[in-house]
Amino acid sequence: MVPHLVTALTGPINELEQRILESMPAIERWFRLEWMEHTPPFYTSVDIRNAGYKLAPVDTNLFPGGFNNLTPEMLPLAVQAAMAAIEKICPEAKNLLLIPEKHTRNMFYLMNVQRLIEIFGLAGLNVRLGTLDESITEPTRLQLPDGSELTLEPLLRTPRRLGLKDFDPCTILLNNDLSAGIPDVLKNLHEQYLLPPLHAGWAVRRKSQHFDSYEEVAKKFAKLLGMDPWLINPMSAQVGEVDWQEGTGLDRVQTQVDALLTKIRRKHKEYGINEKPFVVVKADNGTYGMGIMTVRDAKELEDVSRRTRNKMGVVKDGQTVSQLIIQEGVPTYERVNEAVAEPVVYMIDRYVVGGFYRVHADRGIDENLNAPGASFVPLAFSESHHLPKPGMRPGASAPNRFYMYGVIGRLAMLAASYELEATDPDAEVYE
Amino acid sequence: MVPHLVTALTGPINELEQRILESMPAIERWFRLEWMEHTPPFYTSVDIRNAGYKLAPVDTNLFPGGFNNLTPEMLPLAVQAAMAAIEKICPEAKNLLLIPEKHTRNMFYLMNVQRLIEIFGLAGLNVRLGTLDESITEPTRLQLPDGSELTLEPLLRTPRRLGLKDFDPCTILLNNDLSAGIPDVLKNLHEQYLLPPLHAGWAVRRKSQHFDSYEEVAKKFAKLLGMDPWLINPMSAQVGEVDWQEGTGLDRVQTQVDALLTKIRRKHKEYGINEKPFVVVKADNGTYGMGIMTVRDAKELEDVSRRTRNKMGVVKDGQTVSQLIIQEGVPTYERVNEAVAEPVVYMIDRYVVGGFYRVHADRGIDENLNAPGASFVPLAFSESHHLPKPGMRPGASAPNRFYMYGVIGRLAMLAASYELEATDPDAEVYE
Repeated sequence: MVPHLVTALTGPINELEQRILESMPAIERWFRLEWMEHTPPFYTSVDIRNAGYKLAPVDTNLFPGGFNNLTPEMLPLAVQAAMAAIEKICPEAKNLLLIPEKHTRNMFYLMNVQRLIEIFGLAGLNVRLGTLDESITEPTRLQLPDGSELTLEPLLRTPRRLGLKDFDPCTILLNNDLSAGIPDVLKNLHEQYLLPPLHAGWAVRRKSQHFDSYEEVAKKFAKLLGMDPWLINPMSAQVGEVDWQEGTGLDRVQTQVDALLTKIRRKHKEYGINEKPFVVVKADNGTYGMGIMTVRDAKELEDVSRRTRNKMGVVKDGQTVSQLIIQEGVPTYERVNEAVAEPVVYMIDRYVVGGFYRVHADRGIDENLNAPGASFVPLAFSESHHLPKPGMRPGASAPNRFYMYGVIGRLAMLAASYELEATDPDAEVYE
Repeated sequence: MVPHLVTALTGPINELEQRILESMPAIERWFRLEWMEHTPPFYTSVDIRNAGYKLAPVDTNLFPGGFNNLTPEMLPLAVQAAMAAIEKICPEAKNLLLIPEKHTRNMFYLMNVQRLIEIFGLAGLNVRLGTLDESITEPTRLQLPDGSELTLEPLLRTPRRLGLKDFDPCTILLNNDLSAGIPDVLKNLHEQYLLPPLHAGWAVRRKSQHFDSYEEVAKKFAKLLGMDPWLINPMSAQVGEVDWQEGTGLDRVQTQVDALLTKIRRKHKEYGINEKPFVVVKADNGTYGMGIMTVRDAKELEDVSRRTRNKMGVVKDGQTVSQLIIQEGVPTYERVNEAVAEPVVYMIDRYVVGGFYRVHADRGIDENLNAPGASFVPLAFSESHHLPKPGMRPGASAPNRFYMYGVIGRLAMLAASYELEATDPDAEVYE
């Protein structure tokens, strides 16, 4: 069940794995101290790429879907983490209003929603679903493949509170990333807990800010372990005011791509890595694997097809893209049955509760795997994959490998915490 | 794997199970609010008896052994709970000194110690073992049945701190219940966290105080659910200044036994329970299933044999008994393969992390099962036994049954929290 890394490339990562295992008490203590100063996001999933020579988070999702892809065995762990989160944030909570994405025909997504209801229900909350879809004006039942059903209800807004008919929640949990902007119905809710906060949504959030925070975290962590932060940090640059339709700003993208490729080449030389460098150009505000292209040479940007321009210019919910992040490409050398795979780590509060491999048979090692056709292989919880097994040979133990992924996932989560502090619109009050 | 209850007796307990399941959100919220006011013990195990007509904790252990009897699958949950506990109590902790019981030849106990080392090691602490056994003057290796080994080290006391050679812990975890009294080496440690506190040990602790606190908790909980607290509360009385050797005070024991039997008879009549009442006479300061006798008629105490007197007069580590608790006997109608069984619930911090059935083929339903010859059947964690399954018929679902046990276990843990507050020698400072 454990994907195999290409052997020739496992050297440095095996060293990293060993160093992380040996430093476990120092690492766990460091996290504990960080969480004394910073608040973890309510829940987080992190996509990780393992290139053998480096390991890096490439996407940190603050409204994670895909909880249905975790094994049922992870349920108790998720429930316990959910209890810890609720107890800290809103111990007096009784009713939880869950606001999912609008796509009600995506059965995979609905199964994720069902799993979230289960987790928070078992943590002891009355959970009901409210939808941002204004076309839903009365309780609407949705059938799920397993025969169960979900009921979506229209939101009921009063001047000060948000709820449903006969349901006044103390806590509102968003599983909607707000790519379409912040709806009025969610604004100015000062009496209820709104989790995650509005500025965690893609209406406000920027990848570049996240990776700036991640760089800060990676540097601290690398200092703790006495290693080069590059081994866990994808380098990146930001370019603004790009118009894909008009073609304006693409020259600046090209310059940055060229500069970043040069920096990567230098790193590869330093470590004797025999890989062709590439970068990934992404919408700074994008998600769902949309608005992403792989570039191996800056010249490729001179002649971008109309189709690519259309694809790059618009992301989820029709949001336009004018700001880009250019990121060091990290190939993934993990494979499940020959297909390219990348690990995804799930966290609730500060705890790793599970994970899976996203597998895509039709994609290359340097491509985005979050695309139609992807499948999911859960990291079997029954073998306690996120607990390390000291004493095993580096690279040979799935638990140790996944412990390392859990550490990287938590670093990205910590970066999200820094990021949300930096972008908190209410933060200046305390300055 | 689920022990079967005697069908005729399951009525009231099935009602209780149903009420507990229906009230889950209210119950979980109530616990959250209680934990805002009260500090849970660091770890706890609770023995529960299910009589069909009533369900009650009969022993609350604040230095639990038997972690080795839980399934390996519970490990991630225990580790996560341990992380939560450490993070709250001593986030800056790096080194943990674990002080076990002295009986180094009991392989079952040593496997429990090994499991504790594993749990706290995986939670990110450097764990080493220090012993109160003064005959151990240098590091001593103990072989375990699985081929692994433990190293016991002599304690090193400085005027202000306790540690081992080259090991200065910030936290000391006792897995020794201090029946033999509080050793000098543990006194006046004001710079280090000592968990659980000294007054949780049997040198100070009294069962009667615990059950007074439990009665208070049971009344609050019963009010929340609108039920008779007797359904979850074993009635009890306390008798002091008893000398088993001289026979003094036994008349008072007899009077109390008689009064309690009358009270139980009245309750049985009220509920139409066709059972012969009995009481259990226990040492108020006893543990390890020592110093316990079952009494069905006060007259039995008129002619107590010398053997019984010897047995009742001395408990673990030679501690003498002069104070008794007389408790309503709760038979256990759970059986595993025909043998009498009682559930035991394990908690770390406020979380239920697992449990098992203690099974004893040679004991009756009204006898103490914590005796040589007992065996253990883990509550299979792979089926998430401590997470309820709403919608199942009461009494038919192992997860729902164990959720109920988890609730009762947590009530006993909360009672221990009240108890430790009431007996805290440093508490008066704040009055």
